[in-house]
Amino acid sequence: MAHFDVRVEAYKERVLASFAKQSFLRTLGAQVTHIAPGEVDITLHAKEGLEQQHGFFHAGVTTTIMDSAAGYAAFSLFGAGDGVLTSELKVNLLNPARGAFLLAKGRVIKPGRMLTICQGDVYGAVDGKDIHIATGLFTMVRAEGLEL
Amino acid sequence: MAHFDVRVEAYKERVLASFAKQSFLRTLGAQVTHIAPGEVDITLHAKEGLEQQHGFFHAGVTTTIMDSAAGYAAFSLFGAGDGVLTSELKVNLLNPARGAFLLAKGRVIKPGRMLTICQGDVYGAVDGKDIHIATGLFTMVRAEGLEL
Amino acid sequence: MAHFDVRVEAYKERVLASFAKQSFLRTLGAQVTHIAPGEVDITLHAKEGLEQQHGFFHAGVTTTIMDSAAGYAAFSLFGAGDGVLTSELKVNLLNPARGAFLLAKGRVIKPGRMLTICQGDVYGAVDGKDIHIATGLFTMVRAEGLEL
Amino acid sequence: MAHFDVRVEAYKERVLASFAKQSFLRTLGAQVTHIAPGEVDITLHAKEGLEQQHGFFHAGVTTTIMDSAAGYAAFSLFGAGDGVLTSELKVNLLNPARGAFLLAKGRVIKPGRMLTICQGDVYGAVDGKDIHIATGLFTMVRAEGLEL
Repeated sequence: MAHFDVRVEAYKERVLASFAKQSFLRTLGAQVTHIAPGEVDITLHAKEGLEQQHGFFHAGVTTTIMDSAAGYAAFSLFGAGDGVLTSELKVNLLNPARGAFLLAKGRVIKPGRMLTICQGDVYGAVDGKDIHIATGLFTMVRAEGLEL
Repeated sequence: MAHFDVRVEAYKERVLASFAKQSFLRTLGAQVTHIAPGEVDITLHAKEGLEQQHGFFHAGVTTTIMDSAAGYAAFSLFGAGDGVLTSELKVNLLNPARGAFLLAKGRVIKPGRMLTICQGDVYGAVDGKDIHIATGLFTMVRAEGLEL
Repeated sequence: MAHFDVRVEAYKERVLASFAKQSFLRTLGAQVTHIAPGEVDITLHAKEGLEQQHGFFHAGVTTTIMDSAAGYAAFSLFGAGDGVLTSELKVNLLNPARGAFLLAKGRVIKPGRMLTICQGDVYGAVDGKDIHIATGLFTMVRAEGLEL
Repeated sequence: MAHFDVRVEAYKERVLASFAKQSFLRTLGAQVTHIAPGEVDITLHAKEGLEQQHGFFHAGVTTTIMDSAAGYAAFSLFGAGDGVLTSELKVNLLNPARGAFLLAKGRVIKPGRMLTICQGDVYGAVDGKDIHIATGLFTMVRAEGLEL
């Protein structure tokens, strides 16, 4: 596993403060459950209003929490005054998205001055067994002066 | 523009019936505004609870309506008893997602017995000018016996 | 179709000069057959040594000429002293890559100061009929001071 | 690391036999250097004719060996009479592709009856240090009756 250095001591507070400003993540009920340099996990518990037509979590829900986990993984390494924007994302859906909750893990693969490449994975727990629901790659842009 | 033949005369009703079963699309307030063979448009009006940290529509919202428009574009060509599943998606975010509403256009590029490849695009209207917000490619799976 | 302004009058000469420096494109026998602002086409004639195991053009060949067409489409809009690098690419293979020649079309979708997003498509001609072999999306980076 | 069961005892011989039929991989000088269930590595030594305009390995070379490693990783799990086709690929280029040789690792993430999802990574060795050159995701199709 790669080791990354942070530029801002209070990087965890910065992630949580930015996360709290995203009304869509509140709509979903997503929560940050792990922050480390270049690593963010997001957990989402099942509730009404998040399903697709077969009763599973909608792919848009899965993608949203992966994208957010990956974005904040990148953001955890940025400097004061920097914001994060997703440039592009690619998601492969591996198994139906079910379980009492989903866990999205965002990890920085390659930090950069301009672009930071991240991996995202989503897991669900069904009958006490972990299911790998989705994997993806994300390109994040460091946006100077666009803090939060 | 490609021309596609449908397998089910009531393909529009099938799309609308399946769409109505997706609770997440109701949560977002998304609506189907165009259906033709291999083509579906989805419109989403701005409302509270869909924003990211800078006040734009969250990339997850943009991706969700693209994915749904693309999926139903594929589904419009499927036979009775067939369902649709997204296998993978790739989205490039081109401009901040803003405007009074978003319009997602899903179009079939290549239909297939097993896999149908679709393009998705999202537009917003800002100051009376169309903005190209996102473009993407989607692989949809025809799931026999998984109707709706 | 979008209209783009070039920054360098001799943009065609710049594309051809850079193209000529790529030994791998010579190995393939690829040729530039169209240049306009934000548009480059590359043509490749069938020859021995480019096949995969079923006798079609290898997906790597298809991807290479799409990537090069997309990259030079972006490069055609860049300023003096700028170079182009591919940051990421996504390709959907739609039909077996066959025909006497392949035609790759690269088109800028969204130019940017830092990132330029392009679409790429590859066509083949079989029995006098155009076949759409592949479509893709590409993120190109403008690299200051890395001319050619 | 996932453990996978093979369907054909002579899966290594099948991979090598199919690989030998790809004239494009001979053109590049690529060689299979590791085969295990769901895992294939391909090594490529630097030689003339594989460069892009800055003298690095062309992105098309990098993508080709990743795609082949991923495809044969999937193929190693297929049954007798099955062939493999790439449906789509996504590659993020992380660092300039240089070194005396490139090593591409293809690994199955999720096997399936119809679709097998794989990860690919390419590494180079520069001054005795491993460089992560590219990472990608690949969707492979099991093509019944299209052996080799």
